[in-house]
Amino acid sequence: MAKSYENEHPIKAFGWATRDISGVLSPFNLSRRVTGKKDVQFKVMYCGICHSDLHQLKNEWGNSKYPMVPGHEVVGVVTEVGSKVEKFKVGDKVGVGCMVGSCRKLRWPENLSMDAAPLLCAGITTYSPLKYFGLDKPGMHIGVVGLGGLEHMAVKFAKAFGTKVTVISTYANKKQEAIERLGADSLLISRDPEQMKDNAFGQSSDIRQAAMNTLDGIINTVSAVHPILPLLMLMKSHGKLVMIGAPEKPVELPVFPLLMGRKLVAGSCIGGMKETQEMLDFAAKHNITPDIEVVPMDYINTALERLLKSDVKYRFVLDIGNTLNKK
Amino acid sequence: MAKSYENEHPIKAFGWATRDISGVLSPFNLSRRVTGKKDVQFKVMYCGICHSDLHQLKNEWGNSKYPMVPGHEVVGVVTEVGSKVEKFKVGDKVGVGCMVGSCRKLRWPENLSMDAAPLLCAGITTYSPLKYFGLDKPGMHIGVVGLGGLEHMAVKFAKAFGTKVTVISTYANKKQEAIERLGADSLLISRDPEQMKDNAFGQSSDIRQAAMNTLDGIINTVSAVHPILPLLMLMKSHGKLVMIGAPEKPVELPVFPLLMGRKLVAGSCIGGMKETQEMLDFAAKHNITPDIEVVPMDYINTALERLLKSDVKYRFVLDIGNTLNKK
Repeated sequence: MAKSYENEHPIKAFGWATRDISGVLSPFNLSRRVTGKKDVQFKVMYCGICHSDLHQLKNEWGNSKYPMVPGHEVVGVVTEVGSKVEKFKVGDKVGVGCMVGSCRKLRWPENLSMDAAPLLCAGITTYSPLKYFGLDKPGMHIGVVGLGGLEHMAVKFAKAFGTKVTVISTYANKKQEAIERLGADSLLISRDPEQMKDNAFGQSSDIRQAAMNTLDGIINTVSAVHPILPLLMLMKSHGKLVMIGAPEKPVELPVFPLLMGRKLVAGSCIGGMKETQEMLDFAAKHNITPDIEVVPMDYINTALERLLKSDVKYRFVLDIGNTLNKK
Repeated sequence: MAKSYENEHPIKAFGWATRDISGVLSPFNLSRRVTGKKDVQFKVMYCGICHSDLHQLKNEWGNSKYPMVPGHEVVGVVTEVGSKVEKFKVGDKVGVGCMVGSCRKLRWPENLSMDAAPLLCAGITTYSPLKYFGLDKPGMHIGVVGLGGLEHMAVKFAKAFGTKVTVISTYANKKQEAIERLGADSLLISRDPEQMKDNAFGQSSDIRQAAMNTLDGIINTVSAVHPILPLLMLMKSHGKLVMIGAPEKPVELPVFPLLMGRKLVAGSCIGGMKETQEMLDFAAKHNITPDIEVVPMDYINTALERLLKSDVKYRFVLDIGNTLNKK
């Protein structure tokens, strides 16, 4: 029998895959290696859907391999452990994020709902820079640009750290959502992007003028090329603008405003294993979970389409345990 | 008698000034206020010449006022103190840098030669970011772009902190100077600027390839618009690129390399009073002084011309105490 994805390894497995850059997922038989001495095998219960899954499915980062079973916000229950595994037993809850094969001890807190799977990407991606750059001190004033999957987690963590949070959005109608639903302290309406190119916030608006030089740091997830001068100007001296989104082309960096206030622009990308465990424990302790819409496996293609239109508050999570049925 | 610069205040004073954007200096009679209760009057002994003096003389930052007596690396001896001055007495050595009127206690160390005046700008401007951004830990590896007035101080301070220092220069003939004269550990030849625009260091050069991902931080004084991607790529994860020069137009910031290594680009500009005193004390303790060429007052216009051509190692200092003669 010719080698195929279905029989190249001894353990039968089943998931949904895309076969090509269409990104359309459908049922897929695959196979996995025998559980090694230091391996943990687990049944996937939930999987969050992240915008980077869309990039990968459509080869937008140029490194995709097909067929592809996507997912990097995975939570499940251990079904088998290797002979040398000491820290997990069958029945334990575990999570897998963007890094695999080197986890050793990443563990899902007992009192954290398993459908909070997006913590493994959206959670750590926002928690990590707030901690690393010292933007987690009570009384600080933090800006969060936008209000999507990552941003809503940034607001929740920043509030849990005891900071004051301002959501920066181009949409005035986000006010209720940002403040009442997510607990932000205020919403700052940025001009439309075209106007922002010309100048900073302000001049014509007293509110925006008053917002200048007020923020200790900004979490900026915008992944389109955009002007960052307005954001630099919102920050106090020593302010830190942390870029989490990666525009394809370089952005314009005006250096003089950096010099005058000893400000900085940094990048950050997910977080390490140790920090991910710390984040999960922090989330469990402070009851921080993502706002999710749980959907069945066969809703995946619709979910991806809606995600592309930002039509979700704020993260889709696939209920794989109950709805992945081998047909 | 009509009000003039010579008689508008009661105390007669004398210096060299430019009258317009020619930037050419010549003798100038002016007047100063009576020494106030909290004022200190001092006789200027030495004054360093900084590139920003050139910018100011020629109104290149757009905020110059004429006539102008330039200078912001000033060291002198107290000649009179106000009735409420407690920390200084006649005969004390004092220094004045970029900030005036708010010093209160800036004091020139007894064992530090007064002609080391450039510490007050070139010194603090390089000491401050090394300290503030934590690039002062023994064993770190620091890059310094270029080899002029600021850069040679950056090398001296970085070495005094116990770090390994690599000078990054477009000129291969700077090797002896960087290593033997200033004590840097190595010189990295960057490609000529035109080539650097296309890509990072490396590819064709094993030496440059080996230099990738090696630096903990870089002090970058370049004030022309230039590509920063090559510098980002020289840095390890968590590397810090500190911009001290201020290009007139924005530089291109590629965000993906920042994200991948959680790197940052920051700006820094001189330093505060407290830190300036700390720097002076550190310099006195570690015997760190600028390499200077001491010149008489009437050499000033020649010195400015030579400075414009970077024809000085590394800082001109005017011997004002001995050569400023009212004619």
